[in-house]
Amino acid sequence: MTQKAKTLLLFGATGDLSKRMLLPSLCALDADDLLEPELKIIGTARSELSDGEFRNFARDAVEKFLPAHRRGGMADFLNRLSYQSLDVTTPEGYRELAARVGEDREIAIFLSTAPSLFEPTIRGLGAAGLAGARSRISLEKPLGTDLASSRSINDAVAAAFPESRIFRIDHYLGKETVQNLIALRFANILFEPLWNAQHIEHVQITVAETVGLEDRVDFYDDAGALRDMVQNHMLQLLSLVAMEPPSSFDAGAVRDEKVKVLRALRQVRADESVTGQYSGGGVDGEIVPGYDEELGRDSDTETFVALKAHIDNWRWQGVPFYLRTGKRLPERVTEIVVQFRCVPHSIFPGARLRQNRLVIGIQPQENITLSLMAKVPGIEHEGMTLREVPLDIRMPDAFTGKHKRIAYERLLLDLIGGDQTLFVRRDEVEAQWQWIDAVRESWASEGKTPRTYSAGSWGPSTAIALTERDGVTWHE
Amino acid sequence: MTQKAKTLLLFGATGDLSKRMLLPSLCALDADDLLEPELKIIGTARSELSDGEFRNFARDAVEKFLPAHRRGGMADFLNRLSYQSLDVTTPEGYRELAARVGEDREIAIFLSTAPSLFEPTIRGLGAAGLAGARSRISLEKPLGTDLASSRSINDAVAAAFPESRIFRIDHYLGKETVQNLIALRFANILFEPLWNAQHIEHVQITVAETVGLEDRVDFYDDAGALRDMVQNHMLQLLSLVAMEPPSSFDAGAVRDEKVKVLRALRQVRADESVTGQYSGGGVDGEIVPGYDEELGRDSDTETFVALKAHIDNWRWQGVPFYLRTGKRLPERVTEIVVQFRCVPHSIFPGARLRQNRLVIGIQPQENITLSLMAKVPGIEHEGMTLREVPLDIRMPDAFTGKHKRIAYERLLLDLIGGDQTLFVRRDEVEAQWQWIDAVRESWASEGKTPRTYSAGSWGPSTAIALTERDGVTWHE
Repeated sequence: MTQKAKTLLLFGATGDLSKRMLLPSLCALDADDLLEPELKIIGTARSELSDGEFRNFARDAVEKFLPAHRRGGMADFLNRLSYQSLDVTTPEGYRELAARVGEDREIAIFLSTAPSLFEPTIRGLGAAGLAGARSRISLEKPLGTDLASSRSINDAVAAAFPESRIFRIDHYLGKETVQNLIALRFANILFEPLWNAQHIEHVQITVAETVGLEDRVDFYDDAGALRDMVQNHMLQLLSLVAMEPPSSFDAGAVRDEKVKVLRALRQVRADESVTGQYSGGGVDGEIVPGYDEELGRDSDTETFVALKAHIDNWRWQGVPFYLRTGKRLPERVTEIVVQFRCVPHSIFPGARLRQNRLVIGIQPQENITLSLMAKVPGIEHEGMTLREVPLDIRMPDAFTGKHKRIAYERLLLDLIGGDQTLFVRRDEVEAQWQWIDAVRESWASEGKTPRTYSAGSWGPSTAIALTERDGVTWHE
Repeated sequence: MTQKAKTLLLFGATGDLSKRMLLPSLCALDADDLLEPELKIIGTARSELSDGEFRNFARDAVEKFLPAHRRGGMADFLNRLSYQSLDVTTPEGYRELAARVGEDREIAIFLSTAPSLFEPTIRGLGAAGLAGARSRISLEKPLGTDLASSRSINDAVAAAFPESRIFRIDHYLGKETVQNLIALRFANILFEPLWNAQHIEHVQITVAETVGLEDRVDFYDDAGALRDMVQNHMLQLLSLVAMEPPSSFDAGAVRDEKVKVLRALRQVRADESVTGQYSGGGVDGEIVPGYDEELGRDSDTETFVALKAHIDNWRWQGVPFYLRTGKRLPERVTEIVVQFRCVPHSIFPGARLRQNRLVIGIQPQENITLSLMAKVPGIEHEGMTLREVPLDIRMPDAFTGKHKRIAYERLLLDLIGGDQTLFVRRDEVEAQWQWIDAVRESWASEGKTPRTYSAGSWGPSTAIALTERDGVTWHE
């Protein structure tokens, strides 16, 4: 039985993720009485801050990034916080940190620092006795830039923590509708018998952003869309859509099934991937510069990628999974579209039967829509006239809007509680990288460079062609 | 190609069905421009009425039974009407009727008279040349009281009309949601692969009335619930739920499939039927008398029947179809419940997974609800908490309420237009009677008499036991 953590250590506590997501999430959890009263939260970073200064920092973060009605009595939350200045590359600070943690070493550690600092941090934690058998550690992406670098990070972590105490975050797994997809698939008899190549024509996964480079200049230009989005988030979504029924909704069973999907991904052929880079154009009614201009130099980094993936197993043979992601696209949307096949024969001659479709919206709205054909009511038409009816598998009003949660709330709660189900296992990360590396190798060997697309368009026209060749249109 | 009728002859034009349903339906069709401008409507009955008097009768009927916003410019409708007094048992009136019809013998005839008058009417029509190859005839229930009497009615009609021109009405087939059931089943890939014994646990069909005998005293006491409701409406609903996919939504293909279901009905065993008769009790907050008291004499007629039916074919082996109908039940409701099986294995330990369910509401509201399990939004609970989400396959607001149509509108339009799809073929009626007769024979041979139930209850407790023995609860 996993014990709940008594102490949460936040490394990189003054950083961007902490400010925008982690501190607001923790405050919201506290406001909803979901944290144990005795949980202490210790922030660490390089800056010299007093406890009071860190609390002020946290208050500012919460006030900026958490809606007022979710904050509760903030004082209680702030009282949990303390701060330890720490240069993670030197041993001194860790001893003070250990003293602050005290005797109860039921600790959850969240590393929200640059990946280059993971190794020294873990060494320091180990040396100070903070990586004991009752500690668990959470890591944020990027976990490497390819299989080799990801292995070296994972090795470093594994030197101090067993896999059962390593919590790799993919915040998409904290999303309500992503978890609901698992519920829909396995809590209903309706979907699973149809969830295969015989009844599903294709699956689309889109992660579209309207923003450009923003302030992630160097990181992004080194990574590109494939490694920034596909390797982690999109392959996680794909594996949840495609996995076999796990025997139980627990960390072992679910991740066993996900990794099987990732390992069954077929290597992408040359004509099954499209890369693009945005040039200047108009997004959301504003004129925006091209990528090179934003970056201040020429670059061959892809800001858009579209892939046609296949899963080589019995269930999915012949079913393409189309993935696309990009920056400076016309709208911000993350969604999964499961397109069912046509009925084998229409008994309604002349009627246009649209294929059934399940759309799982993840951003900006979380919603799930099942589209069915039904009779148009009335008798104005002879025989039967049909139309598409979208059914909302809706969250009740009480839970949307007002109580919309940050994905990190779920993940932080599970980290503190010790439930790994929604975290990524090492073998998954490595299977993801293996497939992604092969895509990148194929680009390199073909000398593929990104096609230009206008900011505000849906990527290069070859991305449209990628699906249209199969008679499939991207969902918009 | 079927020609549209130029003349509609209503026999029994001053009767109850004509007043409540047929004239209001025709007026509504006219208001919506769904009748050809040249269509004449000739009412006939025994009473001596002038055209003007019949139009007044029709106006009163429309004003009483059709909402004002549906009436349109009633003058145009009333101008279509004329009247011919007719004693159907003597030949004289038919000649005058024929003269009124004129040369164009594209006629639709609607017999809304006592079944005892069908034979003389058909003879009279034939003698007057009104049963020619361009006439079609529509009959209302009851079409006999058993297989033999039904055959004799059908023989009489067949003497003057080929089957392709006989339109037997079951007004349930004119209901919006009943047709929508066909659309759902065959315009979507989602349902048909699940529509079988492997995925459906059972089907329930309920036709519950709150009324008692009303003014149908003699007819009802001779018939009883089994023949009044099950033989026609409920077996039609059952056959639409259970039929194989027809090759086309047309009269031949659809009725071929329905009759196969009816012929595959297994004979009901002694312990698979329950009959009841209401005693005094409370319905809708009123104290009401028992059946015998209402009738004014003792009677063994059943006012309630519950049956467990089986369809002996591959698709439905082992799937019970529970039917129940009764008078003086707690609410007025007609509905079909398709209960899917449990998931074969729950991956959510501790969660109560409710089985998926499709509920087709026919009365008093027409609606279709698909119930799924989904995740309860939020993170208040660890892991995954699930709840049932009812999805409304809803008619858009524009069509409900305001434009709710009478089932007869569809049927009259199809009669005039010559489309038999929603009418009952002779072989269906006879297959229905064959099964019903066997039920009645088993009652007779066992000396079964109805159990008493209190008005305002859901029938005798044995009806509850009928399903509960199988672990099934009637849907309420």
